[in-house]
Amino acid sequence: SLGQHMSEVNSESVSLCPLSTPAATEQEMLCIFGTGDLGRSLGQRLFQTGYKVVYGSRRPHSCGPLPPGTQAMSHVAAAQSARLVFVCIHRENYNFLETLAPQLKGKVLVDVSNNLKKNMYPEANAEYLQRLIPGAQVVKGFNTLSAWALQNGPSDASRQVYVCGNSLEAKQAVIEVATKLGFTVLDRGSLTAARELEDFPLQLFPEWRLPLQLATGLTAFFFFYLLIRDVIYSYVVNDKDISFRIMASLANKVFPIVSLIMLSLCYLPGVIAAFLQLYRGTKYKRFPDWLDRWMLCRKQLGLVALALASLHVLYTLIIPIRYYVRYRLAAHTISQIKENKTSPFDTTMAWRTDSYYVIGILGFGLYLLLGITSLPSVSNVLSWREFSFIQSKLGYLTLFFCTFHTYLYGWDKFLQPSSYKWFMLPGYMLSLVVPSVVLVLKLLLLLPCVDSTLTRIRQAFLCLCVRLH
Amino acid sequence: SLGQHMSEVNSESVSLCPLSTPAATEQEMLCIFGTGDLGRSLGQRLFQTGYKVVYGSRRPHSCGPLPPGTQAMSHVAAAQSARLVFVCIHRENYNFLETLAPQLKGKVLVDVSNNLKKNMYPEANAEYLQRLIPGAQVVKGFNTLSAWALQNGPSDASRQVYVCGNSLEAKQAVIEVATKLGFTVLDRGSLTAARELEDFPLQLFPEWRLPLQLATGLTAFFFFYLLIRDVIYSYVVNDKDISFRIMASLANKVFPIVSLIMLSLCYLPGVIAAFLQLYRGTKYKRFPDWLDRWMLCRKQLGLVALALASLHVLYTLIIPIRYYVRYRLAAHTISQIKENKTSPFDTTMAWRTDSYYVIGILGFGLYLLLGITSLPSVSNVLSWREFSFIQSKLGYLTLFFCTFHTYLYGWDKFLQPSSYKWFMLPGYMLSLVVPSVVLVLKLLLLLPCVDSTLTRIRQAFLCLCVRLH
Amino acid sequence: SLGQHMSEVNSESVSLCPLSTPAATEQEMLCIFGTGDLGRSLGQRLFQTGYKVVYGSRRPHSCGPLPPGTQAMSHVAAAQSARLVFVCIHRENYNFLETLAPQLKGKVLVDVSNNLKKNMYPEANAEYLQRLIPGAQVVKGFNTLSAWALQNGPSDASRQVYVCGNSLEAKQAVIEVATKLGFTVLDRGSLTAARELEDFPLQLFPEWRLPLQLATGLTAFFFFYLLIRDVIYSYVVNDKDISFRIMASLANKVFPIVSLIMLSLCYLPGVIAAFLQLYRGTKYKRFPDWLDRWMLCRKQLGLVALALASLHVLYTLIIPIRYYVRYRLAAHTISQIKENKTSPFDTTMAWRTDSYYVIGILGFGLYLLLGITSLPSVSNVLSWREFSFIQSKLGYLTLFFCTFHTYLYGWDKFLQPSSYKWFMLPGYMLSLVVPSVVLVLKLLLLLPCVDSTLTRIRQAFLCLCVRLH
Repeated sequence: SLGQHMSEVNSESVSLCPLSTPAATEQEMLCIFGTGDLGRSLGQRLFQTGYKVVYGSRRPHSCGPLPPGTQAMSHVAAAQSARLVFVCIHRENYNFLETLAPQLKGKVLVDVSNNLKKNMYPEANAEYLQRLIPGAQVVKGFNTLSAWALQNGPSDASRQVYVCGNSLEAKQAVIEVATKLGFTVLDRGSLTAARELEDFPLQLFPEWRLPLQLATGLTAFFFFYLLIRDVIYSYVVNDKDISFRIMASLANKVFPIVSLIMLSLCYLPGVIAAFLQLYRGTKYKRFPDWLDRWMLCRKQLGLVALALASLHVLYTLIIPIRYYVRYRLAAHTISQIKENKTSPFDTTMAWRTDSYYVIGILGFGLYLLLGITSLPSVSNVLSWREFSFIQSKLGYLTLFFCTFHTYLYGWDKFLQPSSYKWFMLPGYMLSLVVPSVVLVLKLLLLLPCVDSTLTRIRQAFLCLCVRLH
Repeated sequence: SLGQHMSEVNSESVSLCPLSTPAATEQEMLCIFGTGDLGRSLGQRLFQTGYKVVYGSRRPHSCGPLPPGTQAMSHVAAAQSARLVFVCIHRENYNFLETLAPQLKGKVLVDVSNNLKKNMYPEANAEYLQRLIPGAQVVKGFNTLSAWALQNGPSDASRQVYVCGNSLEAKQAVIEVATKLGFTVLDRGSLTAARELEDFPLQLFPEWRLPLQLATGLTAFFFFYLLIRDVIYSYVVNDKDISFRIMASLANKVFPIVSLIMLSLCYLPGVIAAFLQLYRGTKYKRFPDWLDRWMLCRKQLGLVALALASLHVLYTLIIPIRYYVRYRLAAHTISQIKENKTSPFDTTMAWRTDSYYVIGILGFGLYLLLGITSLPSVSNVLSWREFSFIQSKLGYLTLFFCTFHTYLYGWDKFLQPSSYKWFMLPGYMLSLVVPSVVLVLKLLLLLPCVDSTLTRIRQAFLCLCVRLH
Repeated sequence: SLGQHMSEVNSESVSLCPLSTPAATEQEMLCIFGTGDLGRSLGQRLFQTGYKVVYGSRRPHSCGPLPPGTQAMSHVAAAQSARLVFVCIHRENYNFLETLAPQLKGKVLVDVSNNLKKNMYPEANAEYLQRLIPGAQVVKGFNTLSAWALQNGPSDASRQVYVCGNSLEAKQAVIEVATKLGFTVLDRGSLTAARELEDFPLQLFPEWRLPLQLATGLTAFFFFYLLIRDVIYSYVVNDKDISFRIMASLANKVFPIVSLIMLSLCYLPGVIAAFLQLYRGTKYKRFPDWLDRWMLCRKQLGLVALALASLHVLYTLIIPIRYYVRYRLAAHTISQIKENKTSPFDTTMAWRTDSYYVIGILGFGLYLLLGITSLPSVSNVLSWREFSFIQSKLGYLTLFFCTFHTYLYGWDKFLQPSSYKWFMLPGYMLSLVVPSVVLVLKLLLLLPCVDSTLTRIRQAFLCLCVRLH
């Protein structure tokens, strides 16, 4: 046993049998070309993790402050002293590396560069580097990290690092370094993926684009719709200028309408998928592409809807401090006194408005809960059954509350002809269409006979449920 | 130097001296039985991490789309080509594996299956598998992950994976694969733990059950208590129907009451534990079980209390837009005019109500801060001293503010006999009992003599403070 | 060995060379001195990860309940059976370890101790330990973890562990154990860093100190400034006691003022840095120290500002339920009736106040978004371009909205001489100075000629943008 072995050898200097591999690795020398921000950050971190670090520089004696424990040499000397070379220089300066081709032959070159824009060059930086030095094994990687993240390491949560390259051995060597630095590595295949990797840090919320476009479109539509129906109608028909209502009252109609529609759009694809599976009788056929894409942006749809709902709440809560509202309330009181008749207390009205507000609050509370559980750190501590319970069961409950809140808002206005100005339905009625459809379809799916068929189809693995809401 | 050595050998196949172990591992072949969702997700991820993957299938040529880079064979051929076999098939189909017993002899079988319900079968799936193929080394694991998490890896935060099995070597091989996939592995011992692991993904918020039951019980009690005291009393004694108040006014009494009681119940066990230690004179005796269980659900108690407090805030903020409130205010103004007497401005009243609201706001702000710091990603960047400062010092401050807020609400109503209808105390008075007791006991513990004794008892390791805060 | 056994049984391929190392390591024996909370937690975790664990204890037969699977021995026997010894005892009891010097010679001693206060002892605990047992290789580490975190592992997010020590081999052995436990390790160099590591867990929000001091200072200043300007002025000049306004009205002036100033102070250093770079013509000169320190606490500045803004929102939303406000509104209505003149509806006023509220709400919404994206788990899933977009573009938009909100609040009061009591400007005017300056300077930087110069200077690596936001 190791324990016995140790006490025998015990004397001194401790021959570390089981630890020999790391102890040897620990001595490994890594080379960094370039002493810019990224190069310095990377070098500091590598040194702290136990590597020896040498910089390759044109002016090794005047390249500014380097991290303590590291040293600078000429490019030739630096390249020769290590097997892995991190290339932390501009693509524009790559051409001079051609002169180092003999020294770089057989080395692993890690291209960490990024570009300022997409499609600036015909080929990816890493592919260009490989073409310049065909004898080297180029690996693209680390470029999704900022200098800051490199220097400080993945302290808050594990950060994923992507690599790609043509040589398996070279990639493995880079993966080992990244793992030691504390990152989780994902191999994206051969060097042809380099362009994709170089585009990653230039992405700006790709998965948010569709939901945000949808929100913008719906908001614009309902804004102009209600502008015509409320403000312009009043101006044309009653000759009354109520344009000041645009700022708060109109917005407070548009936001909840769009929010409710978007919330129901989170749950519509799941319902469609279930009906598709029922119709096909199997879950092994792929969904159509548009449905897949729709399902993948449900989280973003829901969060945009939550943001709009929060605005609705704030807009509603400032109602009593608005000048217009205070003026109208005072005018109402004054007119009651002048006409010397007080309107009697309407218990039904009290029940209705209170229910309306309370259901709204409860719906918003559940909404917030859904938002909080979609925070990465929270959803990660949930089991998939818990996650699925919240996002599915509580999600439908939220949708039900919010829809019911809107029906209560309408109350008997559905029956009043005065609601239908210029043959335009009130906005809230339009907003009720999609959620009502979703809730009815979901109810159908919950019918015992339908439910059992669906369960049988899906039973291959429970985990699918995560995909279907 | 290594660099020179490398370029000399360069010829082919790059013998990577220090990297030889991973380079060899990189070639390792893994086998997956089953081409369902989980099997495909697992295979894709394994391939991306650098493993060779082969699927075992009944119909290797018609098993649907497999992840790129992987291939399907017959079960026999697939089993022979790898040492680790992931069993991604239904327990119901396990029996056919018996026919593969010769090929699976000596192999590591990883059982990733889950059941639809608890206790569906007399023995755990993994134990059943071991019984079917006694020659194999069965390891239970990965079953807590969804197909989605497997495919995408632990990208947001490190996800814990549990394994259990009778063979240490087999477990070690599985742990190595899981570690490469980026998961943190926790060994739960022998295969008898398989049932526990199979129950994990079926758990639904086990640690939330007690706090939620408590909240439900308290809410129900106070709802009926206040229903009798306010609504029914008014109906019976004054013959006035104020049932419309149930919706908002009554709920807005119940929520803060239950919230305050639950907040104080977060801090009561810590105080009890401290007195227990004082009494025993040592911290090395275990606490009674009920106290341990109570201490373990304090976070959940606090978060439920925070949710109720948030509802209280929203219910309070909608007060001025409620029909009933607007009606009463207008009626009050009208009556003042009719009786031609204006009530004078009451400075004490202004001080009192403003203080009441402001203390409530500050209490709620601190409450929110406690909630935010209990988010996993936030609490993880705190040192334990910081965490303990917030959860203990700021926690007691929150409790003090919320209790004081309630006392200010009561003000001089404590002395008015009209508050005691049908010999029932007002709800807020009942809610003050536990928090007042906790605050008084905590003050006793802060007395210099008590504090120093307690510090001496606990000083073994500071870290205990986290448990006792 | 397992590998041989496998290849014999299994006919061909699959010799498990690569798995032999972990299989051997798995047997490794670790020793823990001390059976306190930390020792027991550490031992339980080590055992679960696959190590053999032996405790060294003075009374091996009566040291209380140990984690299952571990055993206790005398210190001498325990020390001899392992190469790594975790010292989980008090510094005060270190001296007895001197007697074990022969057994500990050549061993790796991991000092996990902490102190109750900073600077309790002239030398770090780990250095003291090294002095007592010069033949051992002392490594400081794990001390930043609580017993709780040790026992449960880094389940929520990867937790960083720091080590330092004079022997590279010893550190490497400890790093290997920590990595197996699932922690990310950062090597802080030689044992002289031990003091720094021992101070870590005693730190109390060091990076929050400056922002909190600033917030306190500004709040105190504006509180007294407005106290004099509003309350005392009214008392002295108008002989009217409006001291009740201190509680809510005054606070609701101070909070937004301080919040706006602090928000603008988040963006001022970035603007200063840009002008400094323009002036110097290079980004490679270091910024002055005060600027560096300022830039490093911007996140905290912003979060404190957000907390104050949230208080402002809550204080504003309770306005209509305050006694004073209700009294004044009723009095206004009554006076209108008595004087029999109704003020006409003022459309400009409606536009102005609604705009004022709405801009405030949108500003606060963006503010919240900034706050949410600064949660560690959220910012970690953002690419640096996304993070920089939110913190910079949305940040300036937030500042613009909040500043505009304040200008709208002022409206035409800027021109009314009555606003200038005792030659003191209203508070909101003072609060506008810094944000206006920041916004104007930022506009200058966005001028095409300036912008292109700056981009050229910075283009070395995009990543710098993160520092300059």
